[in-house]
Amino acid sequence: MKDFRLYVITGEEFHPTRGVVEVMEEAIQGGADIIQLRDKTNSKRVVLDKARKLRELTRKYDVPFIVNDHIDIALAVDADGIHLGQDDMPLHLAREIVGKDKIIGISTHRIQEAREAEQGGADYIGAGPIFPTNSKSDVVDPVTTSYLDEVVSEISIPFVAIGGIKLHNVADVVNSGANRICVISEVVGSGDVKGTCEMFIQKIGEKVNQL
Amino acid sequence: MKDFRLYVITGEEFHPTRGVVEVMEEAIQGGADIIQLRDKTNSKRVVLDKARKLRELTRKYDVPFIVNDHIDIALAVDADGIHLGQDDMPLHLAREIVGKDKIIGISTHRIQEAREAEQGGADYIGAGPIFPTNSKSDVVDPVTTSYLDEVVSEISIPFVAIGGIKLHNVADVVNSGANRICVISEVVGSGDVKGTCEMFIQKIGEKVNQL
Ligand code: NI
Repeated sequence: MKDFRLYVITGEEFHPTRGVVEVMEEAIQGGADIIQLRDKTNSKRVVLDKARKLRELTRKYDVPFIVNDHIDIALAVDADGIHLGQDDMPLHLAREIVGKDKIIGISTHRIQEAREAEQGGADYIGAGPIFPTNSKSDVVDPVTTSYLDEVVSEISIPFVAIGGIKLHNVADVVNSGANRICVISEVVGSGDVKGTCEMFIQKIGEKVNQL
Repeated sequence: MKDFRLYVITGEEFHPTRGVVEVMEEAIQGGADIIQLRDKTNSKRVVLDKARKLRELTRKYDVPFIVNDHIDIALAVDADGIHLGQDDMPLHLAREIVGKDKIIGISTHRIQEAREAEQGGADYIGAGPIFPTNSKSDVVDPVTTSYLDEVVSEISIPFVAIGGIKLHNVADVVNSGANRICVISEVVGSGDVKGTCEMFIQKIGEKVNQL
């Protein structure tokens, strides 16, 4: 898979008055280089409609498009990949369904989960939540940047740090060895989505405190 | 597809103290000849686990096994088919994903939906809700048996009547031309699941009032 730095996941609850396509387009224009549609509440038909529009958008900008959980929707719109949590379809079954060419990312909260994902053929892992989060995700205690230290030393596939990462704390994450950052609310809930992405990209590029 | 008379859908909220496999096994022993797993609330992993167990059960009894909504799970456990509501994945996309050999059933509430399902290659349709229902399904006004009259006269693929069908009203449905009956709560919430199925089978077989 093409490498990435800034992974933005949809979070429509953080921009109630704006459409998801408009917000994600601004994110891409600001430097988001991989996009995930995450919608665990709406009907398949509604999620499919959003997926189609985001597929069109990401094709236009040549940015990989990932669908969270809904393997069927990922297949229907020919997304580049799927992202699975620990409560979603197990990796080996998902791989059988989507084949070898689709990206599969796995959320991990513990090094054992990271090892299993790597051994199972995941293309990347999410590592987190690093900090407390206000997104509607699985309620898991923050793993802190110490989990990133474990991942850096043990895991060879790409990992993206996720969970409560904001402009004010991203430096800690970058200094723990993360080159890829995943953000939801700080980006999509921003009054300046594009500018916020640009600031993230800048901060990902610089190690703030060389420890 | 093999024809059927008594289609039982899981409704675990109606048997909180008993397991779904135990209840569905009794239904099959009473004459249920097609089984659907319907779970729109639990995580994929939880639904997958139930699907595996029901796949094993239905193989043992040689009864077709249908998964509601979750195409990925249907593929993962090699279910015989999927059932899709009007808010689920559209038929043509679902067919592309599952191929020609899987059964696809479509819920319909209006004759136009029934026509589209037939023209789109559905293997059967659900027609309902005939009566008011206490199942957690899409909230649609009852279509009454007059919808069955339309379906009988216009639609050639198999249809199964669904929605609020109980032992006390099934005769009306059968007299409207339905040879296939779908039941949830009256069966799975019964203190005698097997006996209730046997009574349904008997009532489906006899036209109570020859009009
Ligand atoms: Ni689903």
